[in-house]
Amino acid sequence: MIEASIPTITAFERSPDGGKGLARDTRVRWALEEAGLPYAVRHLSFAAMKGPAHRALHPFGQIPTWEQDGLVLFESGAIVLHLAQDAPGLLPAEPHARARAIAWLFAALNTVEPPILELQHAKLLEGDRSWSAERLPLVLERIRVRLRELAARLGTAEWLDGAFSAGDLMMVSVLLRLRASSLLDEFPLLAAYVARGEGRPAYRRAYDAQAADFAAAASPQG
Amino acid sequence: MIEASIPTITAFERSPDGGKGLARDTRVRWALEEAGLPYAVRHLSFAAMKGPAHRALHPFGQIPTWEQDGLVLFESGAIVLHLAQDAPGLLPAEPHARARAIAWLFAALNTVEPPILELQHAKLLEGDRSWSAERLPLVLERIRVRLRELAARLGTAEWLDGAFSAGDLMMVSVLLRLRASSLLDEFPLLAAYVARGEGRPAYRRAYDAQAADFAAAASPQG
Repeated sequence: MIEASIPTITAFERSPDGGKGLARDTRVRWALEEAGLPYAVRHLSFAAMKGPAHRALHPFGQIPTWEQDGLVLFESGAIVLHLAQDAPGLLPAEPHARARAIAWLFAALNTVEPPILELQHAKLLEGDRSWSAERLPLVLERIRVRLRELAARLGTAEWLDGAFSAGDLMMVSVLLRLRASSLLDEFPLLAAYVARGEGRPAYRRAYDAQAADFAAAASPQG
Repeated sequence: MIEASIPTITAFERSPDGGKGLARDTRVRWALEEAGLPYAVRHLSFAAMKGPAHRALHPFGQIPTWEQDGLVLFESGAIVLHLAQDAPGLLPAEPHARARAIAWLFAALNTVEPPILELQHAKLLEGDRSWSAERLPLVLERIRVRLRELAARLGTAEWLDGAFSAGDLMMVSVLLRLRASSLLDEFPLLAAYVARGEGRPAYRRAYDAQAADFAAAASPQG
Protein backbone atom coordinates (compact mmCIF):
# COMPACT_ATOMS: atom_id res chain seq x y z
CA MET A 1 0.00 0.00 0.00
CA ILE A 2 2.82 2.41 0.81
CA GLU A 3 4.54 1.62 -2.47
CA ALA A 4 1.33 2.15 -4.41
CA SER A 5 1.06 5.68 -3.08
CA ILE A 6 4.45 6.87 -4.36
CA PRO A 7 3.70 9.48 -7.03
CA THR A 8 5.12 9.19 -10.52
CA ILE A 9 6.15 12.37 -12.33
CA THR A 10 7.22 12.79 -15.92
CA ALA A 11 10.40 14.51 -17.10
CA PHE A 12 12.38 15.02 -20.30
CA GLU A 13 14.41 12.02 -21.46
CA ARG A 14 17.03 14.49 -22.73
CA SER A 15 17.13 17.97 -21.31
CA PRO A 16 16.72 20.95 -23.66
CA ASP A 17 18.84 22.94 -21.19
CA GLY A 18 21.50 20.26 -20.81
CA GLY A 19 20.42 19.44 -17.26
CA LYS A 20 20.73 22.89 -15.66
CA GLY A 21 17.57 22.44 -13.62
CA LEU A 22 15.36 24.69 -15.73
CA ALA A 23 12.88 22.06 -16.94
CA ARG A 24 9.68 22.36 -14.96
CA ASP A 25 9.95 18.94 -13.34
CA THR A 26 12.68 20.52 -11.16
CA ARG A 27 9.98 22.55 -9.40
CA VAL A 28 8.05 19.43 -8.51
CA ARG A 29 11.18 17.45 -7.55
CA TRP A 30 12.22 20.33 -5.29
CA ALA A 31 8.83 20.41 -3.57
CA LEU A 32 8.93 16.63 -3.11
CA GLU A 33 12.41 16.87 -1.61
CA GLU A 34 11.37 19.69 0.74
CA ALA A 35 8.50 17.49 1.91
CA GLY A 36 10.73 14.42 2.16
CA LEU A 37 8.48 12.39 -0.14
CA PRO A 38 9.74 9.60 -2.40
CA TYR A 39 8.76 9.67 -6.06
CA ALA A 40 9.28 7.82 -9.32
CA VAL A 41 10.14 9.41 -12.66
CA ARG A 42 9.01 8.34 -16.10
CA HIS A 43 11.15 9.88 -18.85
CA LEU A 44 9.68 10.98 -22.14
CA SER A 45 11.21 11.67 -25.53
CA PHE A 46 10.00 14.83 -27.22
CA ALA A 47 7.97 12.69 -29.64
CA ALA A 48 6.34 10.76 -26.78
CA MET A 49 5.59 14.03 -24.97
CA LYS A 50 3.58 15.23 -27.95
CA GLY A 51 1.95 11.83 -28.59
CA PRO A 52 -1.62 10.81 -27.76
CA ALA A 53 -0.77 8.66 -24.72
CA HIS A 54 0.91 11.55 -22.91
CA ARG A 55 -1.63 14.08 -24.12
CA ALA A 56 -4.29 12.01 -22.37
CA LEU A 57 -2.46 12.96 -19.17
CA HIS A 58 -1.37 16.47 -20.21
CA PRO A 59 -3.55 18.26 -22.77
CA PHE A 60 -0.71 20.61 -23.74
CA GLY A 61 1.87 17.84 -24.26
CA GLN A 62 4.34 19.05 -21.67
CA ILE A 63 6.12 17.85 -18.56
CA PRO A 64 5.74 17.39 -15.64
CA THR A 65 2.65 15.36 -14.88
CA TRP A 66 1.71 13.75 -11.58
CA GLU A 67 0.09 10.33 -11.13
CA GLN A 68 -0.83 8.93 -7.75
CA ASP A 69 -3.60 6.59 -6.67
CA GLY A 70 -5.69 7.30 -9.76
CA LEU A 71 -5.22 11.06 -9.70
CA VAL A 72 -3.60 12.61 -12.79
CA LEU A 73 -2.48 16.23 -12.63
CA PHE A 74 -0.61 18.60 -14.93
CA GLU A 75 0.77 22.15 -14.48
CA SER A 76 3.73 22.39 -12.13
CA GLY A 77 1.96 25.07 -10.08
CA ALA A 78 -1.03 22.81 -9.48
CA ILE A 79 1.19 19.84 -8.65
CA VAL A 80 3.31 21.82 -6.18
CA LEU A 81 0.20 23.23 -4.53
CA HIS A 82 -1.43 19.80 -4.39
CA LEU A 83 1.47 18.17 -2.61
CA ALA A 84 2.14 21.23 -0.44
CA GLN A 85 -1.36 21.09 0.98
CA ASP A 86 -0.84 17.71 2.61
CA ALA A 87 2.93 17.59 3.16
CA PRO A 88 4.98 19.40 5.79
CA GLY A 89 7.30 22.33 5.16
CA LEU A 90 5.78 24.03 2.14
CA LEU A 91 2.80 26.00 3.45
CA PRO A 92 2.19 27.65 6.82
CA ALA A 93 -0.56 26.13 8.95
CA GLU A 94 -2.09 29.49 9.91
CA PRO A 95 -4.85 30.16 7.32
CA HIS A 96 -3.97 33.77 6.46
CA ALA A 97 -0.26 33.05 6.09
CA ARG A 98 -1.15 30.01 4.04
CA ALA A 99 -3.32 32.05 1.64
CA ARG A 100 -0.54 34.62 1.26
CA ALA A 101 2.04 31.94 0.46
CA ILE A 102 -0.29 30.64 -2.25
CA ALA A 103 -0.64 34.20 -3.57
CA TRP A 104 3.15 34.32 -4.07
CA LEU A 105 2.97 31.03 -5.94
CA PHE A 106 0.47 32.60 -8.33
CA ALA A 107 2.52 35.82 -8.53
CA ALA A 108 5.53 33.79 -9.63
CA LEU A 109 3.57 32.05 -12.37
CA ASN A 110 1.22 34.75 -13.63
CA THR A 111 3.05 38.05 -12.96
CA VAL A 112 6.79 37.35 -12.94
CA GLU A 113 7.10 34.40 -15.32
CA PRO A 114 5.15 35.72 -18.36
CA PRO A 115 7.67 38.48 -19.23
CA ILE A 116 10.48 35.96 -18.67
CA LEU A 117 8.78 33.57 -21.10
CA GLU A 118 8.65 36.45 -23.57
CA LEU A 119 12.42 36.79 -23.26
CA GLN A 120 12.84 33.09 -23.93
CA HIS A 121 10.64 33.36 -27.02
CA ALA A 122 12.59 36.43 -28.15
CA LYS A 123 15.87 34.53 -27.88
CA LEU A 124 14.93 30.99 -28.87
CA LEU A 125 12.17 31.57 -31.42
CA GLU A 126 12.97 35.04 -32.77
CA GLY A 127 16.70 35.37 -32.18
CA ASP A 128 17.42 35.21 -35.92
CA ARG A 129 14.78 37.76 -36.91
CA SER A 130 15.63 41.20 -38.23
CA TRP A 131 14.05 42.93 -35.24
CA SER A 132 15.72 40.85 -32.56
CA ALA A 133 18.50 43.25 -31.50
CA GLU A 134 16.25 46.30 -31.50
CA ARG A 135 13.39 44.59 -29.69
CA LEU A 136 15.34 42.78 -26.96
CA PRO A 137 15.82 45.90 -24.77
CA LEU A 138 12.04 46.40 -24.64
CA VAL A 139 11.52 42.84 -23.46
CA LEU A 140 14.26 43.13 -20.87
CA GLU A 141 12.79 46.37 -19.56
CA ARG A 142 9.41 44.71 -18.98
CA ILE A 143 11.17 42.11 -16.85
CA ARG A 144 13.11 44.81 -14.98
CA VAL A 145 9.84 46.46 -13.95
CA ARG A 146 8.75 43.27 -12.21
CA LEU A 147 12.15 42.59 -10.68
CA ARG A 148 12.30 46.13 -9.28
CA GLU A 149 8.88 45.67 -7.68
CA LEU A 150 9.75 42.25 -6.34
CA ALA A 151 13.07 43.47 -4.88
CA ALA A 152 11.28 46.42 -3.25
CA ARG A 153 8.87 44.05 -1.52
CA LEU A 154 11.47 41.46 -0.54
CA GLY A 155 13.95 44.00 0.80
CA THR A 156 16.50 42.30 2.99
CA ALA A 157 14.11 39.60 4.18
CA GLU A 158 15.18 36.00 3.76
CA TRP A 159 11.93 34.86 2.12
CA LEU A 160 8.87 36.62 0.71
CA ASP A 161 6.54 36.22 3.67
CA GLY A 162 7.96 34.71 6.84
CA ALA A 163 9.26 31.17 6.58
CA PHE A 164 10.24 29.53 3.28
CA SER A 165 7.13 28.35 1.42
CA ALA A 166 5.90 26.94 -1.87
CA GLY A 167 5.63 30.60 -2.95
CA ASP A 168 9.38 31.05 -2.54
CA LEU A 169 10.03 27.72 -4.22
CA MET A 170 8.12 28.85 -7.28
CA MET A 171 9.50 32.40 -7.32
CA VAL A 172 13.09 31.19 -7.10
CA SER A 173 12.39 28.61 -9.82
CA VAL A 174 10.99 31.30 -12.12
CA LEU A 175 13.87 33.70 -11.44
CA LEU A 176 16.39 30.93 -12.16
CA ARG A 177 15.30 31.18 -15.79
CA LEU A 178 17.15 34.50 -15.86
CA ARG A 179 20.49 32.92 -15.02
CA ALA A 180 21.57 32.99 -18.67
CA SER A 181 21.02 36.76 -18.77
CA SER A 182 22.73 39.28 -16.52
CA LEU A 183 19.41 40.68 -15.28
CA LEU A 184 19.58 39.18 -11.81
CA ASP A 185 22.99 40.80 -11.26
CA GLU A 186 21.24 44.18 -11.48
CA PHE A 187 19.18 43.26 -8.40
CA PRO A 188 21.55 42.04 -5.68
CA LEU A 189 18.72 41.41 -3.20
CA LEU A 190 17.06 39.09 -5.69
CA ALA A 191 20.33 37.42 -6.68
CA ALA A 192 20.94 36.66 -3.00
CA TYR A 193 17.36 35.40 -2.63
CA VAL A 194 17.79 33.03 -5.57
CA ALA A 195 21.13 31.87 -4.17
CA ARG A 196 19.43 31.11 -0.84
CA GLY A 197 16.89 28.99 -2.69
CA GLU A 198 19.53 27.15 -4.68
CA GLY A 199 21.47 26.59 -1.47
CA ARG A 200 18.70 24.63 0.20
CA PRO A 201 19.59 20.93 0.53
CA ALA A 202 16.25 19.94 -1.00
CA TYR A 203 16.99 22.03 -4.11
CA ARG A 204 20.41 20.43 -4.45
CA ARG A 205 18.90 16.96 -4.17
CA ALA A 206 16.31 17.79 -6.84
CA TYR A 207 18.93 19.28 -9.15
CA ASP A 208 21.28 16.36 -8.69
CA ALA A 209 18.52 13.80 -9.25
CA GLN A 210 17.57 15.44 -12.54
CA ALA A 211 21.21 15.66 -13.62
CA ALA A 212 21.77 12.01 -12.72
CA ASP A 213 18.76 10.99 -14.80
CA PHE A 214 20.15 12.83 -17.81
CA ALA A 215 23.59 11.34 -17.31
CA ALA A 216 22.05 7.88 -17.18
CA ALA A 217 20.04 8.54 -20.33
CA ALA A 218 23.13 9.82 -22.16
CA SER A 219 25.13 6.71 -21.35
CA PRO A 220 24.37 3.36 -23.02
CA GLN A 221 25.43 1.75 -19.73
CA GLY A 222 23.18 4.09 -17.76
CA MET B 1 -19.97 40.62 12.62
CA ILE B 2 -21.55 39.58 9.34
CA GLU B 3 -20.94 42.98 7.85
CA ALA B 4 -17.31 42.96 9.00
CA SER B 5 -16.66 39.82 7.01
CA ILE B 6 -17.71 41.21 3.65
CA PRO B 7 -14.55 41.28 1.50
CA THR B 8 -13.35 44.45 -0.18
CA ILE B 9 -11.76 44.18 -3.59
CA THR B 10 -10.02 46.89 -5.61
CA ALA B 11 -10.79 47.82 -9.20
CA PHE B 12 -9.90 50.51 -11.74
CA GLU B 13 -11.60 53.86 -11.23
CA ARG B 14 -11.67 54.22 -15.04
CA SER B 15 -11.40 51.11 -17.17
CA PRO B 16 -8.54 50.85 -19.69
CA ASP B 17 -10.84 48.67 -21.79
CA GLY B 18 -13.86 50.95 -21.48
CA GLY B 19 -15.69 48.52 -19.21
CA LYS B 20 -15.70 45.41 -21.41
CA GLY B 21 -15.05 43.11 -18.49
CA LEU B 22 -11.39 42.47 -19.26
CA ALA B 23 -9.89 44.03 -16.13
CA ARG B 24 -8.87 41.30 -13.74
CA ASP B 25 -11.33 42.29 -11.01
CA THR B 26 -14.00 40.77 -13.28
CA ARG B 27 -12.58 37.33 -12.51
CA VAL B 28 -12.97 37.89 -8.79
CA ARG B 29 -16.41 39.51 -9.11
CA TRP B 30 -17.55 36.55 -11.21
CA ALA B 31 -16.32 34.07 -8.60
CA LEU B 32 -18.05 36.05 -5.84
CA GLU B 33 -21.28 36.07 -7.84
CA GLU B 34 -21.08 32.32 -8.51
CA ALA B 35 -20.69 31.80 -4.77
CA GLY B 36 -23.45 34.25 -3.95
CA LEU B 37 -21.18 36.32 -1.71
CA PRO B 38 -21.58 40.07 -1.18
CA TYR B 39 -18.53 42.30 -1.60
CA ALA B 40 -17.44 45.90 -1.55
CA VAL B 41 -15.31 47.65 -4.17
CA ARG B 42 -12.69 50.33 -3.64
CA HIS B 43 -11.85 52.13 -6.88
CA LEU B 44 -8.34 53.29 -7.65
CA SER B 45 -6.95 55.83 -10.07
CA PHE B 46 -3.92 54.69 -12.02
CA ALA B 47 -1.74 56.97 -9.87
CA ALA B 48 -3.16 55.53 -6.65
CA MET B 49 -2.65 52.00 -7.98
CA LYS B 50 1.05 52.67 -8.39
CA GLY B 51 1.36 54.59 -5.10
CA PRO B 52 2.86 53.35 -1.84
CA ALA B 53 -0.44 52.78 -0.01
CA HIS B 54 -1.69 50.35 -2.63
CA ARG B 55 1.72 48.77 -3.14
CA ALA B 56 1.64 47.83 0.54
CA LEU B 57 -1.31 45.62 -0.42
CA HIS B 58 -0.13 44.64 -3.90
CA PRO B 59 3.64 44.60 -4.50
CA PHE B 60 3.17 44.89 -8.27
CA GLY B 61 0.79 47.85 -8.10
CA GLN B 62 -2.13 46.15 -9.83
CA ILE B 63 -5.77 45.32 -9.24
CA PRO B 64 -7.56 43.39 -7.86
CA THR B 65 -6.68 42.96 -4.21
CA TRP B 66 -8.74 41.22 -1.53
CA GLU B 67 -9.15 42.39 2.07
CA GLN B 68 -11.21 40.49 4.61
CA ASP B 69 -10.86 40.13 8.38
CA GLY B 70 -7.22 41.16 8.34
CA LEU B 71 -6.23 39.03 5.37
CA VAL B 72 -4.77 40.88 2.36
CA LEU B 73 -4.34 38.99 -0.90
CA PHE B 74 -3.27 39.87 -4.42
CA GLU B 75 -3.23 37.90 -7.71
CA SER B 76 -6.66 37.14 -9.13
CA GLY B 77 -5.82 33.43 -9.34
CA ALA B 78 -4.99 33.30 -5.64
CA ILE B 79 -8.09 35.28 -4.72
CA VAL B 80 -10.40 33.09 -6.80
CA LEU B 81 -8.86 29.94 -5.34
CA HIS B 82 -9.07 31.33 -1.80
CA LEU B 83 -12.76 32.10 -2.00
CA ALA B 84 -13.52 28.95 -4.00
CA GLN B 85 -12.11 26.75 -1.26
CA ASP B 86 -14.73 27.82 1.26
CA ALA B 87 -17.65 28.83 -0.92
CA PRO B 88 -20.11 26.61 -2.78
CA GLY B 89 -20.22 26.13 -6.52
CA LEU B 90 -16.63 26.71 -7.62
CA LEU B 91 -14.75 23.52 -6.74
CA PRO B 92 -15.92 19.90 -6.59
CA ALA B 93 -15.98 18.32 -3.14
CA GLU B 94 -14.36 15.06 -4.28
CA PRO B 95 -10.59 15.50 -3.71
CA HIS B 96 -9.33 14.25 -7.09
CA ALA B 97 -11.85 16.28 -9.07
CA ARG B 98 -11.03 19.27 -6.88
CA ALA B 99 -7.29 18.96 -7.62
CA ARG B 100 -8.00 18.68 -11.36
CA ALA B 101 -10.19 21.80 -11.33
CA ILE B 102 -7.33 23.68 -9.65
CA ALA B 103 -4.97 22.35 -12.34
CA TRP B 104 -7.17 23.98 -14.99
CA LEU B 105 -7.03 27.24 -13.07
CA PHE B 106 -3.23 27.10 -13.25
CA ALA B 107 -3.33 26.04 -16.91
CA ALA B 108 -5.39 29.12 -17.72
CA LEU B 109 -2.93 31.43 -15.99
CA ASN B 110 0.43 29.85 -16.76
CA THR B 111 -0.05 28.04 -20.09
CA VAL B 112 -2.86 29.78 -21.98
CA GLU B 113 -2.59 33.38 -20.75
CA PRO B 114 1.16 34.05 -21.29
CA PRO B 115 1.01 33.91 -25.12
CA ILE B 116 -2.16 36.04 -24.98
CA LEU B 117 -0.30 38.60 -22.86
CA GLU B 118 2.42 38.58 -25.52
CA LEU B 119 -0.21 39.50 -28.08
CA GLN B 120 -1.40 42.37 -25.91
CA HIS B 121 2.18 43.61 -25.56
CA ALA B 122 2.68 43.28 -29.32
CA LYS B 123 -0.39 45.38 -30.00
CA LEU B 124 -0.39 47.89 -27.15
CA LEU B 125 3.34 48.38 -26.50
CA GLU B 126 4.90 47.54 -29.85
CA GLY B 127 2.12 48.27 -32.33
CA ASP B 128 3.98 51.29 -33.73
CA ARG B 129 7.32 49.50 -34.12
CA SER B 130 8.84 48.66 -37.49
CA TRP B 131 8.59 44.92 -36.86
CA SER B 132 4.99 44.87 -35.71
CA ALA B 133 3.29 43.68 -38.91
CA GLU B 134 5.91 41.01 -39.65
CA ARG B 135 6.05 39.73 -36.07
CA LEU B 136 2.33 39.57 -35.29
CA PRO B 137 1.71 36.30 -37.20
CA LEU B 138 4.37 34.56 -35.08
CA VAL B 139 2.69 35.68 -31.88
CA LEU B 140 -0.74 34.63 -33.13
CA GLU B 141 0.58 31.22 -34.13
CA ARG B 142 1.91 30.60 -30.61
CA ILE B 143 -1.60 31.28 -29.28
CA ARG B 144 -3.14 29.01 -31.93
CA VAL B 145 -1.00 26.10 -30.73
CA ARG B 146 -2.52 26.42 -27.26
CA LEU B 147 -6.06 26.94 -28.54
CA ARG B 148 -5.79 23.87 -30.76
CA GLU B 149 -4.67 21.76 -27.79
CA LEU B 150 -7.36 23.18 -25.54
CA ALA B 151 -10.09 22.59 -28.12
CA ALA B 152 -8.87 19.02 -28.62
CA ARG B 153 -9.21 18.34 -24.90
CA LEU B 154 -12.53 20.13 -24.44
CA GLY B 155 -14.16 18.54 -27.47
CA THR B 156 -17.91 18.92 -27.29
CA ALA B 157 -18.01 18.85 -23.50
CA GLU B 158 -19.77 21.68 -21.73
CA TRP B 159 -16.92 22.39 -19.30
CA LEU B 160 -13.30 21.24 -19.00
CA ASP B 161 -13.77 18.52 -16.37
CA GLY B 162 -17.31 17.70 -15.34
CA ALA B 163 -19.29 20.49 -13.71
CA PHE B 164 -18.42 24.18 -14.09
CA SER B 165 -15.54 25.09 -11.77
CA ALA B 166 -13.09 27.86 -10.90
CA GLY B 167 -10.91 26.32 -13.62
CA ASP B 168 -13.55 27.09 -16.25
CA LEU B 169 -14.11 30.54 -14.76
CA MET B 170 -10.43 31.36 -15.20
CA MET B 171 -10.06 29.74 -18.62
CA VAL B 172 -13.08 31.59 -20.01
CA SER B 173 -11.78 34.83 -18.48
CA VAL B 174 -8.39 34.36 -20.15
CA LEU B 175 -9.93 33.45 -23.52
CA LEU B 176 -12.16 36.53 -23.37
CA ARG B 177 -8.99 38.58 -23.86
CA LEU B 178 -9.00 37.30 -27.44
CA ARG B 179 -12.38 38.84 -28.21
CA ALA B 180 -10.74 41.79 -29.97
CA SER B 181 -8.95 39.39 -32.34
CA SER B 182 -10.64 36.86 -34.61
CA LEU B 183 -8.69 33.95 -33.14
CA LEU B 184 -11.58 32.45 -31.20
CA ASP B 185 -13.65 32.30 -34.39
CA GLU B 186 -11.13 29.80 -35.74
CA PHE B 187 -12.04 27.42 -32.91
CA PRO B 188 -15.83 27.06 -32.79
CA LEU B 189 -15.74 24.66 -29.84
CA LEU B 190 -13.84 27.24 -27.79
CA ALA B 191 -16.01 30.10 -28.99
CA ALA B 192 -19.06 28.17 -27.81
CA TYR B 193 -17.34 27.38 -24.51
CA VAL B 194 -16.59 31.08 -23.92
CA ALA B 195 -20.16 31.97 -24.84
CA ARG B 196 -21.42 29.44 -22.27
CA GLY B 197 -19.28 31.13 -19.65
CA GLU B 198 -20.47 34.60 -20.59
CA GLY B 199 -24.03 33.33 -20.55
CA ARG B 200 -23.93 32.35 -16.89
CA PRO B 201 -26.06 34.65 -14.75
CA ALA B 202 -23.17 35.15 -12.32
CA TYR B 203 -20.92 36.37 -15.14
CA ARG B 204 -23.59 38.80 -16.31
CA ARG B 205 -23.99 40.17 -12.79
CA ALA B 206 -20.23 40.63 -12.46
CA TYR B 207 -19.98 42.31 -15.85
CA ASP B 208 -22.93 44.60 -15.16
CA ALA B 209 -21.61 45.55 -11.71
CA GLN B 210 -18.27 46.57 -13.19
CA ALA B 211 -19.94 48.50 -16.00
CA ALA B 212 -22.22 50.26 -13.51
CA ASP B 213 -19.20 51.28 -11.42
CA PHE B 214 -17.55 52.81 -14.47
CA ALA B 215 -20.73 54.59 -15.49
CA ALA B 216 -21.03 56.03 -11.98
CA ALA B 217 -17.39 57.15 -12.05
CA ALA B 218 -17.86 58.76 -15.46
CA SER B 219 -20.87 60.78 -14.31
CA PRO B 220 -20.50 63.69 -11.89
CA GLN B 221 -23.92 62.68 -10.52
CA GLY B 222 -22.79 59.04 -10.11
